[in-house]
Amino acid sequence: MSLLADLLTTVFERRARIGPILRRDPRSTEALISDLMGARSETAALSLARRVLQRYVELDDAGKLAIFRHVAETYGLDAEALRSALDAFEAAPSGTTYRAFTHACEAPRQELMRRLNAVPGGTERLVQMRADLRRLGGDEAALQALDLDAKHLLRAWFNRGFLVLRPISWESPAHILEKIIEYEAVHAIHSWDDLRRRLKPADRRCFAFFHPAMPDEPLIFVEVALTKGIPGSIQKLLAEDRLPGGSGEADTAVFYSISNCQPGLAGISFGNSLIKQVVSDLAAELPGLKTFVTLSPIPGLTRWLKAEGRSFDPQDGKAMAALAAHYLLHAKRPDGQPVDPVARFHLGNGAMVQAVHAEADVSENGLRQSGGVMVNYLYDLNRVEKYHDRYADSFEVTAAQGVKSLANTREKVAAG
Amino acid sequence: MSLLADLLTTVFERRARIGPILRRDPRSTEALISDLMGARSETAALSLARRVLQRYVELDDAGKLAIFRHVAETYGLDAEALRSALDAFEAAPSGTTYRAFTHACEAPRQELMRRLNAVPGGTERLVQMRADLRRLGGDEAALQALDLDAKHLLRAWFNRGFLVLRPISWESPAHILEKIIEYEAVHAIHSWDDLRRRLKPADRRCFAFFHPAMPDEPLIFVEVALTKGIPGSIQKLLAEDRLPGGSGEADTAVFYSISNCQPGLAGISFGNSLIKQVVSDLAAELPGLKTFVTLSPIPGLTRWLKAEGRSFDPQDGKAMAALAAHYLLHAKRPDGQPVDPVARFHLGNGAMVQAVHAEADVSENGLRQSGGVMVNYLYDLNRVEKYHDRYADSFEVTAAQGVKSLANTREKVAAG
Amino acid sequence: MSLLADLLTTVFERRARIGPILRRDPRSTEALISDLMGARSETAALSLARRVLQRYVELDDAGKLAIFRHVAETYGLDAEALRSALDAFEAAPSGTTYRAFTHACEAPRQELMRRLNAVPGGTERLVQMRADLRRLGGDEAALQALDLDAKHLLRAWFNRGFLVLRPISWESPAHILEKIIEYEAVHAIHSWDDLRRRLKPADRRCFAFFHPAMPDEPLIFVEVALTKGIPGSIQKLLAEDRLPGGSGEADTAVFYSISNCQPGLAGISFGNSLIKQVVSDLAAELPGLKTFVTLSPIPGLTRWLKAEGRSFDPQDGKAMAALAAHYLLHAKRPDGQPVDPVARFHLGNGAMVQAVHAEADVSENGLRQSGGVMVNYLYDLNRVEKYHDRYADSFEVTAAQGVKSLANTREKVAAG
Amino acid sequence: MSLLADLLTTVFERRARIGPILRRDPRSTEALISDLMGARSETAALSLARRVLQRYVELDDAGKLAIFRHVAETYGLDAEALRSALDAFEAAPSGTTYRAFTHACEAPRQELMRRLNAVPGGTERLVQMRADLRRLGGDEAALQALDLDAKHLLRAWFNRGFLVLRPISWESPAHILEKIIEYEAVHAIHSWDDLRRRLKPADRRCFAFFHPAMPDEPLIFVEVALTKGIPGSIQKLLAEDRLPGGSGEADTAVFYSISNCQPGLAGISFGNSLIKQVVSDLAAELPGLKTFVTLSPIPGLTRWLKAEGRSFDPQDGKAMAALAAHYLLHAKRPDGQPVDPVARFHLGNGAMVQAVHAEADVSENGLRQSGGVMVNYLYDLNRVEKYHDRYADSFEVTAAQGVKSLANTREKVAAG
Repeated sequence: MSLLADLLTTVFERRARIGPILRRDPRSTEALISDLMGARSETAALSLARRVLQRYVELDDAGKLAIFRHVAETYGLDAEALRSALDAFEAAPSGTTYRAFTHACEAPRQELMRRLNAVPGGTERLVQMRADLRRLGGDEAALQALDLDAKHLLRAWFNRGFLVLRPISWESPAHILEKIIEYEAVHAIHSWDDLRRRLKPADRRCFAFFHPAMPDEPLIFVEVALTKGIPGSIQKLLAEDRLPGGSGEADTAVFYSISNCQPGLAGISFGNSLIKQVVSDLAAELPGLKTFVTLSPIPGLTRWLKAEGRSFDPQDGKAMAALAAHYLLHAKRPDGQPVDPVARFHLGNGAMVQAVHAEADVSENGLRQSGGVMVNYLYDLNRVEKYHDRYADSFEVTAAQGVKSLANTREKVAAG
Repeated sequence: MSLLADLLTTVFERRARIGPILRRDPRSTEALISDLMGARSETAALSLARRVLQRYVELDDAGKLAIFRHVAETYGLDAEALRSALDAFEAAPSGTTYRAFTHACEAPRQELMRRLNAVPGGTERLVQMRADLRRLGGDEAALQALDLDAKHLLRAWFNRGFLVLRPISWESPAHILEKIIEYEAVHAIHSWDDLRRRLKPADRRCFAFFHPAMPDEPLIFVEVALTKGIPGSIQKLLAEDRLPGGSGEADTAVFYSISNCQPGLAGISFGNSLIKQVVSDLAAELPGLKTFVTLSPIPGLTRWLKAEGRSFDPQDGKAMAALAAHYLLHAKRPDGQPVDPVARFHLGNGAMVQAVHAEADVSENGLRQSGGVMVNYLYDLNRVEKYHDRYADSFEVTAAQGVKSLANTREKVAAG
Repeated sequence: MSLLADLLTTVFERRARIGPILRRDPRSTEALISDLMGARSETAALSLARRVLQRYVELDDAGKLAIFRHVAETYGLDAEALRSALDAFEAAPSGTTYRAFTHACEAPRQELMRRLNAVPGGTERLVQMRADLRRLGGDEAALQALDLDAKHLLRAWFNRGFLVLRPISWESPAHILEKIIEYEAVHAIHSWDDLRRRLKPADRRCFAFFHPAMPDEPLIFVEVALTKGIPGSIQKLLAEDRLPGGSGEADTAVFYSISNCQPGLAGISFGNSLIKQVVSDLAAELPGLKTFVTLSPIPGLTRWLKAEGRSFDPQDGKAMAALAAHYLLHAKRPDGQPVDPVARFHLGNGAMVQAVHAEADVSENGLRQSGGVMVNYLYDLNRVEKYHDRYADSFEVTAAQGVKSLANTREKVAAG
Repeated sequence: MSLLADLLTTVFERRARIGPILRRDPRSTEALISDLMGARSETAALSLARRVLQRYVELDDAGKLAIFRHVAETYGLDAEALRSALDAFEAAPSGTTYRAFTHACEAPRQELMRRLNAVPGGTERLVQMRADLRRLGGDEAALQALDLDAKHLLRAWFNRGFLVLRPISWESPAHILEKIIEYEAVHAIHSWDDLRRRLKPADRRCFAFFHPAMPDEPLIFVEVALTKGIPGSIQKLLAEDRLPGGSGEADTAVFYSISNCQPGLAGISFGNSLIKQVVSDLAAELPGLKTFVTLSPIPGLTRWLKAEGRSFDPQDGKAMAALAAHYLLHAKRPDGQPVDPVARFHLGNGAMVQAVHAEADVSENGLRQSGGVMVNYLYDLNRVEKYHDRYADSFEVTAAQGVKSLANTREKVAAG
């Protein structure tokens, strides 16, 4: 086997090797953690880290929460020591004093997490632990600090340079595909047949980011349809009886679903990188593609309309579209950003609002959330940086003239 | 292709893609770095990071040193801001104040390095930059602090859980093998034929650690000979005209050369993990192996003898062996550890001094460094942790009775 | 990528490349074949072969049959030419006359098939064509001869030395797994969940033979359960709510389903090799396995009982088991071999009849075919060759004493 | 691992598994072969085939020749049986009589070879055996017939559809690269450094055909230089101190060395397919390439000049070039084909003579064989089929006007 292929195969095999279940250890979880923190040899540390990880998964939620609190309190920052170290460094800056300072700066629980991560498969477990922490932790200050430390390390380990973009296809391993079914968060995949329809036709693509230390777990994925022209209906795009086009004829790539897979990596954003790299890879592979666009939900629309006390009728597609355009362009949070979370994501990436379509998602969920309206955000690679900066400066929403007019209509209507 | 194999293939391809040389940018390196630190979009940051990395390799040593000083000073710690943040956190511990504190704790140059690392292939460049920094930096306090920050990040990125052990064989890619030739630091490999003799016979093995983000660069490797009994001469072990044994008949695995490959990863130790994992893998593959032992140089012997003013005669093998045993067991640094660096490494890993052999390395280098004497350190998996702890506690050197007697002889001789 | 991995990846890519659909060619299929046979350059031959393969798939059954007849008649053996060549060779044996003889010996349609096989993906198409031929050809002598020529070539191309045994697991590509679902011929797989239950648990295995030129098509596969002791009920073995054991505790490997996948490879037997290699691989991987046994249907039992005019009652398990034992040991075809096809297969491989179980397959199909009885054939690697030869000599059926007694009981009963 | 990658990995592993050396068998080689031919079970046949292959490699040349003669005579054609089978088939054509006929048609030694090929690694051994047979066999009629049978089977097994084109690069496994060094037949590779210069620069490429059953053995390879314009000197093309160009700037791909690797596959031509596929792959990868051309030796030139009694002076480049042009266009064998073997190969592939260069190969060998002259054969994909057919019809040599004029000059000179 090639060295390259081998590298990951090995990662994988090692991961599998964590498996063998260790005999019951009489020590409490807290004692195991304490012993792990005190372990001096790598061998001892690895063995204890495995025990801690194994013990953790046997805990119920109350037990997990107790451990989180224990770790947060026992292995937190020593502010006095830090102040002394900082003083010493300032008094006599040197390698030695800086080293002592950086050591004092760091809550010891970070070292705990590093030791857990040294176990093969440890990364995946830590991501799962942080997911638990966020689910259970609420707004306890100590647990928030613990979460920030975990995030700090995970951000280092999931550095963009380590991520790997992989196509997901009908030839991908089944155990990955079942996770695609499970993690799809926008337009549910109802069965393996449904999945095959999203992956197998020549005009469908899917891409995911992976990390070499978690090769069985997608981090985020995007589903793409290759079309002629920009589509305005998700049901038509995914219709079972549609005639699949060839990838060669397409001029447009439609990103119709983006799903984050790992709640344990919350706050470490992959979506921007994913879209940019998929756009760049597809453009290289299929030179006929000229337009890169989303077909996105408007999840906050009806909630906002109700909160604003505005009446609306999903049956009246024209009016709904005008309301949606108005909402996307003018409904703002106190900080000046759009109310709509999907809008914030794409506009923050440098996309613009290209078009708004009524009766575009007539599923129960689509009607309830957004009165059936959907929106295309356009990624124009030549302008994405300019729009990004403009948005970053002033939260200015760039939109096509048609959408602006539509929003305007609405205002007139509202004013009329 | 499989997902697993693909992951790394992609890493590799992306690495290759850094290649395209960017057009000359009129900005100074300092300005590019400043712009990179200020970049708000990922796209902009990636593009600037590529420019910085490309600019760096064009610099001569003076230019590199100037950049290191610039970064160390411009993007260093803000002690006042840190004190405020720490006070604020202590006054009102919360997620928000802790986040501000952790931010203040970190010199901005860490963010600079993270941004450089996001470029495909950036990891390898950063490792090279740190090698330059250590070569050029001397004992300047500011540069030592910069080095510590770099080491801090590299330690996170090269976490043990991310390393991959791979066999190196005559079927490995040539561009990896030429690096094995280049990096071999103990017993030089003189040609491709020489390399083939170290890799191809059934009784020879080689293993290296790799990191997925640097798949073309071994981090550390060990060469192994499978033998019957413990050998006492490196020249015999590597003789061109020896009759290679089958791997099946061997009862002993001899680690006769361990080489670190990356000066840019200095201080991040892989040797201990490497030996432990190779022992464990070999034991699983070849159940006939009962003994795991090194055949190691004693690089500090003659220097120490001279410094001590003791006379010695490399021709008198018996006396040299006794001197070597004495040196290994009793020559200590002020901190209590052995003077010999190789001894410190293996004893620190939990090995013991098993045997000392005169006329074991009659190469020019072997005679000059250690009067031709070599030593076997024994890795006994059942005791390695015990010996490690014993050494860690008191720097007590565990040795076989024969070596102790030999050292004793010497003392008597010396005393006589 | 590694050379090894690359080789097949390339095969795969080339296969995909056949895809591009050629523009409609005005020539008749017969004319295309004639041009292909006459093509002098490889380039021309490849292009024509692609056209012929593409044209073929567009034909309906009548069109296919017409082409088979055309080829059988037009490109058949020239007996006169063969006689002359044989005479000439005997008169003056030499390289030249032997070459002419071997040329005359071969019907030109073999060259036609070789030229079709040179197209990437051609092998898979030829296998499909032979499946069509066997389905449509009936007992027409000319088509049987054509089938024999096809089989002759396919046997050369599917030489045992070229086959590759691969584990099929829940991590295998979905497009392979959907073929496992489709081709399962013994105990139907009803859904992807059902498939997961057959592949994912630690005590389940599946293996298939593949050919490098058809990497997406399994040739034959076997499903294996790892158990403690020899099981006597397929429903218990496959129960949804069973507690999966670990592979480490098992002492028995049960081959409970073997399915041929390619009707176009009829008469080219893979089952014997498959079982032998799986036994050998499992024995190496899991030293705890001591017994290799099937849990097989007895598909001809009730049919034979009816033909013999014997009454039987599936409710009376004891009597059914005795009847089944009698049938397996004593019901023979005119040629002396057992009537039961599954018995012929396993006994011909050198297995013995180990045990007979009543109420072992209470599915509708199991009750109808065999009154719910199943049988274990035992593969004892130390005796498989001896039993094979004994069977090959005299069709003697080797059976365990218990089965013989059971069959005997039945005879007494029948006689009583 | 992926199924695809696995397939070949397995092939490879199985190949390695042949290794274990069997205990000495007391039977003679002839007896082992006889037992193999008589083996009824696959298990027995595989075991005997392994013994035969192992015994064979222990034989010296005399022993090998004796075995070849034994097999040729003992397992040859039974002409009488064939005549009867042919008569029976003609009297009553049916599947049964055709099957008997095809069986009778085939010398039993073919079955012998098939059984040897069923052993993992058998294919490579059979190729080696045929190389021995051709080396030792001379013009013995019986051995020529044996060789033809071997070639018949190898041609089936090495069908174009099973071959895999792989790039050979500096990242290829060393054990493959050392074979490239060994097999290079045109411009010797003197060292690993020399090899690196042929593989590593961006303007150098190498491609080889492999067969999945012999993944460690290239069948044929071609070395390619990417250049601006058509080169006229091999020494300049391979100069150590040349400045490597980027692949992107090149407009011409120069095939400057093609080497067959397997004498045991003599008469089974891969060169034509190799060149065509490399041209097609390079054209797809590098759209800037417009010209595909060889830089070829003229190995028969000086020999022919001497045989013709024509005087020539390698120092007089101009005259040599004219002589070479004349030779290529007009020196013919009795069958009408060019005398020059390299010319026959490329013209037979559909290439044309594009240019002739004096002082193009000033190596000792180049001067001796062809007075330093070299030739470019041009592969024009749009015309290659036309030229091929023209050559196949009448052996007409297509040449550029310049070459014709040059040849003409020479004639005038000769006539003058």
